[in-house]
Amino acid sequence: MADPRSTSQRIVDTVSRLENDTDAWVASTDASRPWLTPLCLLWHDGHLLFATDSSTPTASNARTLPEVRVALGHTRDVVIVQGQAAISGSADLTGDEAAGYQTKHGSDPRTWADAVIRVRPVRILAWREENELAGRLLMRAGRWLR
Amino acid sequence: MADPRSTSQRIVDTVSRLENDTDAWVASTDASRPWLTPLCLLWHDGHLLFATDSSTPTASNARTLPEVRVALGHTRDVVIVQGQAAISGSADLTGDEAAGYQTKHGSDPRTWADAVIRVRPVRILAWREENELAGRLLMRAGRWLR
Repeated sequence: MADPRSTSQRIVDTVSRLENDTDAWVASTDASRPWLTPLCLLWHDGHLLFATDSSTPTASNARTLPEVRVALGHTRDVVIVQGQAAISGSADLTGDEAAGYQTKHGSDPRTWADAVIRVRPVRILAWREENELAGRLLMRAGRWLR
Repeated sequence: MADPRSTSQRIVDTVSRLENDTDAWVASTDASRPWLTPLCLLWHDGHLLFATDSSTPTASNARTLPEVRVALGHTRDVVIVQGQAAISGSADLTGDEAAGYQTKHGSDPRTWADAVIRVRPVRILAWREENELAGRLLMRAGRWLR
């Protein structure tokens, strides 16, 4: 097992994961049951941005209860983001967001999705193995703990 | 992109993932917000079995609302299990379950966890890329669609 990383190293690694991971697991709820699905991720201007259809359970849940919980990739290199989702029409994407999405994912979401979910991170946790459970909190109340 | 797999091939692959994946993402809810955390997975006798502390949000949520949604590993080799969770004390583990856990994960959960969550799968979906979205339903009402 590797030595535990410092907080600042975990923040660097976590931002890199947010920038580079293609997909994320998005958990939401309508208050009657949990929902969990993978969506393409764009990290833009401090937010996680997901394009989807407004009729999907994730979009519908985010309208009902805006708190979501997002996990990146690997269960042994965990990044968990608790955040507040805001949903709008995909026509509302800024030019910068659409260009960022196009560069990362090779498509303009306005051509295939009618909704965009922007998640403002509130708490971020990251750990690899058990020896990193201590110190796993990297963001609290929307601020990185640098 | 590879050709889409047949239903029977997906079932074989999915059971292999259930047997061999070390961890799973477990989504649950207390009706006010979603929860999502990675837990060590044991597939035993048609159930997903997780050991954890009874004080964790996942255990507490499963007591409140037994429906959970579990995802295995990769966002481009998706296995999603919707199931009904039953929670009991870890002392309630059968000898077979404890032996299976020991063999797979190298520990007896009765020594470090006070609760066990058994998830009976109700629906299972599996897909890799977009061309496998059709036909992704592999289990309905607890029965494999062989």
